[in-house]
Amino acid sequence: MARIVNRDEILSSGDIDSKRVLLDIVEHVLDNIDPVRAVYSSVSVNRESRVFRVDGKIFRIRGRIYVVGIGKAACRMARAIEDLFGDMIEDGVVITKYGHREDLSRLKVIEAGHPIPDANSLRGAEEAMKIFSRVDQRDILLFLISGGGSALFEYPEDGISLKDIIVVNDLLVKSGAKIHEINTVRKHISRVKGGKVSRMVRGRIVALIISDVVGDPIEFIASGPTARDPTTFRDAYRIAKLYDVWDKFPESVRVYIEKGVEGLVQETLKEVPGNVDHFIISSNSIACSHAAEKAQELRLRPAILTTQLEGEAKDAGIVLGSIAVEVYKMDRPVTKPALLIAGGESTVTLVGSKEIGVGGPNQELVLSLSKKIRGLRSVAAVSIDTDGADGSTDASGGIVDGYTYDLLVDRGIDPDTYLKKHDSYRALKAINSLVITGATGTNVNSITLILVR
Amino acid sequence: MARIVNRDEILSSGDIDSKRVLLDIVEHVLDNIDPVRAVYSSVSVNRESRVFRVDGKIFRIRGRIYVVGIGKAACRMARAIEDLFGDMIEDGVVITKYGHREDLSRLKVIEAGHPIPDANSLRGAEEAMKIFSRVDQRDILLFLISGGGSALFEYPEDGISLKDIIVVNDLLVKSGAKIHEINTVRKHISRVKGGKVSRMVRGRIVALIISDVVGDPIEFIASGPTARDPTTFRDAYRIAKLYDVWDKFPESVRVYIEKGVEGLVQETLKEVPGNVDHFIISSNSIACSHAAEKAQELRLRPAILTTQLEGEAKDAGIVLGSIAVEVYKMDRPVTKPALLIAGGESTVTLVGSKEIGVGGPNQELVLSLSKKIRGLRSVAAVSIDTDGADGSTDASGGIVDGYTYDLLVDRGIDPDTYLKKHDSYRALKAINSLVITGATGTNVNSITLILVR
Repeated sequence: MARIVNRDEILSSGDIDSKRVLLDIVEHVLDNIDPVRAVYSSVSVNRESRVFRVDGKIFRIRGRIYVVGIGKAACRMARAIEDLFGDMIEDGVVITKYGHREDLSRLKVIEAGHPIPDANSLRGAEEAMKIFSRVDQRDILLFLISGGGSALFEYPEDGISLKDIIVVNDLLVKSGAKIHEINTVRKHISRVKGGKVSRMVRGRIVALIISDVVGDPIEFIASGPTARDPTTFRDAYRIAKLYDVWDKFPESVRVYIEKGVEGLVQETLKEVPGNVDHFIISSNSIACSHAAEKAQELRLRPAILTTQLEGEAKDAGIVLGSIAVEVYKMDRPVTKPALLIAGGESTVTLVGSKEIGVGGPNQELVLSLSKKIRGLRSVAAVSIDTDGADGSTDASGGIVDGYTYDLLVDRGIDPDTYLKKHDSYRALKAINSLVITGATGTNVNSITLILVR
Repeated sequence: MARIVNRDEILSSGDIDSKRVLLDIVEHVLDNIDPVRAVYSSVSVNRESRVFRVDGKIFRIRGRIYVVGIGKAACRMARAIEDLFGDMIEDGVVITKYGHREDLSRLKVIEAGHPIPDANSLRGAEEAMKIFSRVDQRDILLFLISGGGSALFEYPEDGISLKDIIVVNDLLVKSGAKIHEINTVRKHISRVKGGKVSRMVRGRIVALIISDVVGDPIEFIASGPTARDPTTFRDAYRIAKLYDVWDKFPESVRVYIEKGVEGLVQETLKEVPGNVDHFIISSNSIACSHAAEKAQELRLRPAILTTQLEGEAKDAGIVLGSIAVEVYKMDRPVTKPALLIAGGESTVTLVGSKEIGVGGPNQELVLSLSKKIRGLRSVAAVSIDTDGADGSTDASGGIVDGYTYDLLVDRGIDPDTYLKKHDSYRALKAINSLVITGATGTNVNSITLILVR
C-alpha cells in the first residue's frame, strides 16, 4: 500500500493539525484506490456455486475463465483476480509497463514500452489475441484495463509496421493535434483498439476498468479495446489533413485509411455486442467519494466540487482557493468545518519563460493556492497525482496551509517568481511541503483537498 | 437603469429558455446594484427627528451635513443622498470621471482624469479639503467612495508635483510591481490617501463605499482615504528599491519618503479614530446575493461558490465549467435545478500570440466554459462586468449554452483558435452571444452565473 514516506517532515512545522487531517484523508484514499482493493470492492466470487458478481451484476461460470490484463495497474489487478478465482482460471496474459512487473502464479506477465509502444507491445497483443481466440461461447474473458494500455497493447492493421505507427503518432503529437484526435487516427490503424477486441471473442467479456481519463469515457481509456467507437476513417483522414501531416504519413497507413474511407476494410466497433459488459471499478470519482467518506468520519462537511477538473494548474489553484476563502469568510457554498474536494487533471503550460524549473501540476496548483489562503488559520490544501508521480518529479504533489506563503517569503523564496518559472518543486521542497508516496501502482488522475475549519 | 439592449437578438437562437432565465437574473442584479438603489437600500433618513440610519446604525444630526463624493459612481450616489437629505445638506463637492457627470441640485460636480490623475484631480481634492476643514465637531461628513477615486481625488504631499506623482506611478507600473505595491508608494506621497482624510475632519465621518476591489478591503478601495493603512514609508522605500526604480524617482519624492523613513513627516493612518464609520453599501458579494435571491424566486437552488474569483479567465471558465458538469451529471456539490454564482475579477494575460483579437475576461471565460458544457441540455452560463464594459469592448460580457460550441464550429469559428488569439468578442458576436448593457454607472466587478437544470 502506498504511504506518505515524508509524513513526519511535513508535520514538523506550520499548521500541523490541519495538515495531519489532510494526510490522513490522502492515505485513506490511496489505500482504497489500490487496484487489489478496488477489485475486491467490486468483484466477489462464489467458487462452489460457480458464480461471480461485479457491482451487483451476476455472472454464471459455465465454461472456462480466461484473463487478459493491460495497463500500468494490470499486475495488481491480476493478482486480486488470481486470489479470487484461483484454479478456475484456465489461462491468461498480463501486459504492463517496464518496472511494473509483479510475479503472478497463473498468468504470464509481459513488460512493454510506454508511452511509445515497442516490439513487446506487439508480442503482448499477439499473446492476448491467442487467448481471445480460445474463449469459447460458454467461456468468460476477464479483461483488466487500466491507463497506459494504449501503448502497452498494440498490433497494427495489415501492411502497417510498428515503426509506421510510431511515425504517425509522432507526426500528430508534433502537429498540435489534440489527444482525442490522435487517438482517432490510431484506433483506425490498430487491430486491437476502438472496440475491435470485442469482435475477436466468442464468449462473454467482462471488462474491469480503472479509469485514468477525466469523465471516464470508456472509449478513451486505453483506447477502448472493447468499447464502441464513435469516430470514423473519414474523421481520421480529415484530422491528418487538418494538421497537415497526411502527406508525411507512411504509405502503408495512407493506403489503409483510404481503403477504410472507401469501405473496403472494416470500421471500428459501432455497437457493443450483448456479450460485453464494462465496469469502472476505480476512477477519480470513486477516489473523491473515498475522500468524502473519510471527511465525514472526521466530522468534516465534504463537498465534491468536481471530478472533471481541467485547466491550467496555477489558475485552478486560484479558483479553488477563491472558493476556500468564501467558505472561510462566508460559510458558503458549504459551512465550516468543510473539506472541499476537486478531482481531475490540471495541466502546466510552459510559456515564455527561458528558465524552466522543476514541478508538476499538483505542486503548482497548491503553491498558487497558498497565496489565496495566505494568513488564514486552520485552512490547508493538498493536491496529488494518484499515480505517485506529479509531472516528472519524484513527488506525488504538495501540501500548503495559511502560513506557507509567508514562510516562503521569509526564506527568500518568492512564490510568484517560482510559479512563473514553473519551479514549484524546489519551493515546496525547501519547506518540507512536498508529498512523497512513490509509485502507487494505479492511476485515477489527481485530487485536490482543501480543509477549511 | 441598465438594460440588456440586445436581449431579443440573444434570445433568437440556441437554448432560449435557459438564456432567458439568466438574462432575467442579470437584469435583477443590475437594477439592484445601481448606486441610487444601493444608497436607498442602506440609508434611511427621518428629517423631522433629525436622525438617519445606515445598515442599522443610527446617527443623530446635531449640526450640519456635508457631502464629498469621489469615484465613478459618485454622481449617482450623490443624487440619492440629495434626495434623502434635501436641504439638510449644507455644502459639498463630487469628483467623478470625465463623461460621468450628472447634474446635482446642491452639490458641485468636478470631472477629473482617470486612470491618470490630472489638474482637475487636484482641484477637486482642494475643494474637498475646503469642505473637510469646515466640518465642525457637531457636523457630519457623508463621504461617498467608489472605484476610480484614487486617480480622481489626488493631492501630493509637500514639495511634490502632480507630474512627479504621474512619473512615479508610471515607473512602478512598468517595473512589474503589483497593484498593492504601487498603492503603498502612492499612499505615502499623497495628502489624501491612506486614511489621511480622517485626520482632516473634526466631526463625524460616515463613509458609504461601493467596493470594486475583490474581498472589499476598505484600505484599497479608492486608496482608502479614510481607512487604516498597514503599510509604512519603509515599505514604500523597499518596494522602490526592489523594482529598481528608486534612483529614477523624482528628487522631491525621494526626499519626502526619506523624511518619512526618518520619522520627520507623519505616517499614513494607523488607527481609525472613533468618529469614522465605514459602510460597504454595494459590492460584488451584495450583487451575488441579489442573484441568489432572484434564483430562489425562480425556484432554482443558488450556490454562491465564491465572491473572490481571480485567475486567468480561460481557466476560470474551465474550472467553473467542470463544477457545472458535476452538478449536471452527479447532482453535486448542489442538486439541480441550480444556479452557480461566482463573483470576482478574472484576468486575460496576453502571451505569445502575435495576432491579438478583441475581447474581455468575461467573454473569454464563457467562451472557454462553452467547451466544458458542450452538448449538455438546459445548461447555460453568462458572465458580465458590472460596469458594463468587459475589457475594452462595448459589451458587458457574454452568454453561452450547451449548443454554443458546436454552433461556433458549424460557422467555421474554432473556439480554441479564437481563445488562443484572445478574440472572444468576434466569436460571440457572430452568434449573437455578447451581452450589451452600456455603462451601468457603477462597478462591483464581475459575476458569472451558470444555470444547470
